[in-house]
Amino acid sequence: MTHRIALIPGDGIGKEVMPSAVRCLDALARRPGLDFELTDFPYSCEYYARHGAMMPDDGIDQLRPHDAILLGAVGYPGVPDHVSLWGLLLPIRREFGQYVNLRPVRLLRGLTSALRDRGPEDLNYLVIRENNEGEYSDIGGRLYDGLPEAMAIQANVITRKGSERILDYAFRTAQSRPRQTLAYATKSNGIKHSMPFWDEQVAAMAPRYPDVAVEQYHVDILAANLVTHPDWFDVIVGTNLFGDILSDLGPATAGGIGVAPSANINPDPAIPSMFEPVHGSAPDIAGQDIANPIAMIWTVVMMLEDLKEYDAARDLMGALETVTGEGKVLTRDLGGTAGTVEFTDRLLAELE
Amino acid sequence: MTHRIALIPGDGIGKEVMPSAVRCLDALARRPGLDFELTDFPYSCEYYARHGAMMPDDGIDQLRPHDAILLGAVGYPGVPDHVSLWGLLLPIRREFGQYVNLRPVRLLRGLTSALRDRGPEDLNYLVIRENNEGEYSDIGGRLYDGLPEAMAIQANVITRKGSERILDYAFRTAQSRPRQTLAYATKSNGIKHSMPFWDEQVAAMAPRYPDVAVEQYHVDILAANLVTHPDWFDVIVGTNLFGDILSDLGPATAGGIGVAPSANINPDPAIPSMFEPVHGSAPDIAGQDIANPIAMIWTVVMMLEDLKEYDAARDLMGALETVTGEGKVLTRDLGGTAGTVEFTDRLLAELE
Ligand SMILES: CC(C)[C@H](C(=O)O)[C@@H](O)C(=O)O
Ligand SMILES: CC(C)[C@H](C(=O)O)[C@@H](O)C(=O)O
Repeated sequence: MTHRIALIPGDGIGKEVMPSAVRCLDALARRPGLDFELTDFPYSCEYYARHGAMMPDDGIDQLRPHDAILLGAVGYPGVPDHVSLWGLLLPIRREFGQYVNLRPVRLLRGLTSALRDRGPEDLNYLVIRENNEGEYSDIGGRLYDGLPEAMAIQANVITRKGSERILDYAFRTAQSRPRQTLAYATKSNGIKHSMPFWDEQVAAMAPRYPDVAVEQYHVDILAANLVTHPDWFDVIVGTNLFGDILSDLGPATAGGIGVAPSANINPDPAIPSMFEPVHGSAPDIAGQDIANPIAMIWTVVMMLEDLKEYDAARDLMGALETVTGEGKVLTRDLGGTAGTVEFTDRLLAELE
Repeated sequence: MTHRIALIPGDGIGKEVMPSAVRCLDALARRPGLDFELTDFPYSCEYYARHGAMMPDDGIDQLRPHDAILLGAVGYPGVPDHVSLWGLLLPIRREFGQYVNLRPVRLLRGLTSALRDRGPEDLNYLVIRENNEGEYSDIGGRLYDGLPEAMAIQANVITRKGSERILDYAFRTAQSRPRQTLAYATKSNGIKHSMPFWDEQVAAMAPRYPDVAVEQYHVDILAANLVTHPDWFDVIVGTNLFGDILSDLGPATAGGIGVAPSANINPDPAIPSMFEPVHGSAPDIAGQDIANPIAMIWTVVMMLEDLKEYDAARDLMGALETVTGEGKVLTRDLGGTAGTVEFTDRLLAELE
């Protein structure tokens, strides 16, 4: 089986962790019956500097015929976010309808939690983030700009369709796991229109999943509980912004942002999903071979699972946790001295 | 000097921690030259059950002639949030223009942080939350309610005036502290209209405070950094929602929500400010004499400071940290066995 993968290394450390991913895929492709057709796409801030856009006009169409998109990171100082992100990352998520953003939080063997007395048994949950609407809508504008009376208005848009599809995904995921609980983030005690509507969608769906226990948390308390009671959580679902915040906070308690993977999923197999580490392009540490490739490699594991290559996914994850578990070859952010390449060498030796 | 204080115990544990506060005020009032005129207001969910409203129509006017409002907590199961909060807490904050919400995060002597290897020297910052506008606006509504096409739209409104006054307060606060740094929370990389406007207000004000170093953090990364690098922070300013989330997260790393105080300030001394613990009414533990009164007592300290009773504030805080520092009399949430009353007894003995 040949999987067509679009590679977008992007900027900064994206270009350093992508080779780690490619080396893993190359190693796995030596197995009988598994192959990858890898195509490089240079869409990035560098591309923008040359062409005045993050990707060509038909960029989305060029990506469409792939089975998956693997992205490193985008962003470079001097290129405003509204160019680098709204010109590449966010359009890919939206135009391919990747409405599920999956962000597992799990303390890998051998890593130390930033939380006192917490180990792998306490830190193992999945944040499911709505990825297409909500607080990230393009709707809004300004009045009296430049005058003392100036104001900006931003609309959050929560649709029933958009909520139902992400909640349905979250309920099904919770149902398939041993604990069968679904925590959802809201803020309906303070935010009057969008959040009560979101709560109603949860309440309306719950009876269809009678075996799933639903727990409501206001986002402020939920953030606090991820620190004081991480063991309470199994599956957490949140709107675009709340999912964003909780899925950066979670990894901070479980080895740091250098290990956190993510998947932007459209469950329709005919449309490519996108896989990217949670971390950014980190220009401050780029080019020094010190970036941690774990987030990217774990992201590859998520991609392999989505491609139904379960054996390859399991073996790559197994190799990764063997290496972290030994604790001998780790990058600086985890207290080690290894470079990006050295860590990847060790991982590939283990995988083979 | 007699200070007129309006007391609103509210619901649940609010009614148990308020007596601790009153006992502290009574003890301090034995000092020459310091007096409090305390007036009880029964505004609460119980009041609602009897009168069909959280407070009377002229409730705000009844509170107005006071020098400060001290609130326990409001909320009771069965009374929807839009009644209990939008009928009492939020109107007080808005109608009195209490646009500054101050939430100090500091690990008291003797308490243990939920973060590994972090002590009092690492956890000492102040979250300044915009308290009147932003994500908590009343503007919005629904379309196609009940139909498959249903949607809710919520407007966030950020005004120049509203931003300038909170940012000015934050810059002045940062300037007055030894580290002179101001971190601000934003999400302008993802949220297109409100957040870039907020960033521009920060940028426009910064030159007026050349001695303050300004640091921009997207809220997701900021939340992560409060776990991994709390020692980086001194003063943090955020919009209503971001300030809410960060000021629950911070206390979770510094002894828990049972110790976190807050002040809702209108800097105009002619208008009452409101002081309340960050925690809620906690109906699950109410009526058992197990609530931690520390948040409430620290909140009284903040009120005394606002009333310019600096000696009384310092002595009460000193007594509080002596008791926590000894670690002998602590409530259950802090690993002790003392009840609300027993802790307060010990504190008052220390104060005298
Ligand atoms: C109860 C709720 C409306 C309130 C808020 O979000 O402002 C609370 O969380 C707080 O922080 O005071
Ligand atoms: C870069 C930013 C727009 C993005 C987001 O908020 O979605 C990032 O934080 C993420 O989580 O992927």
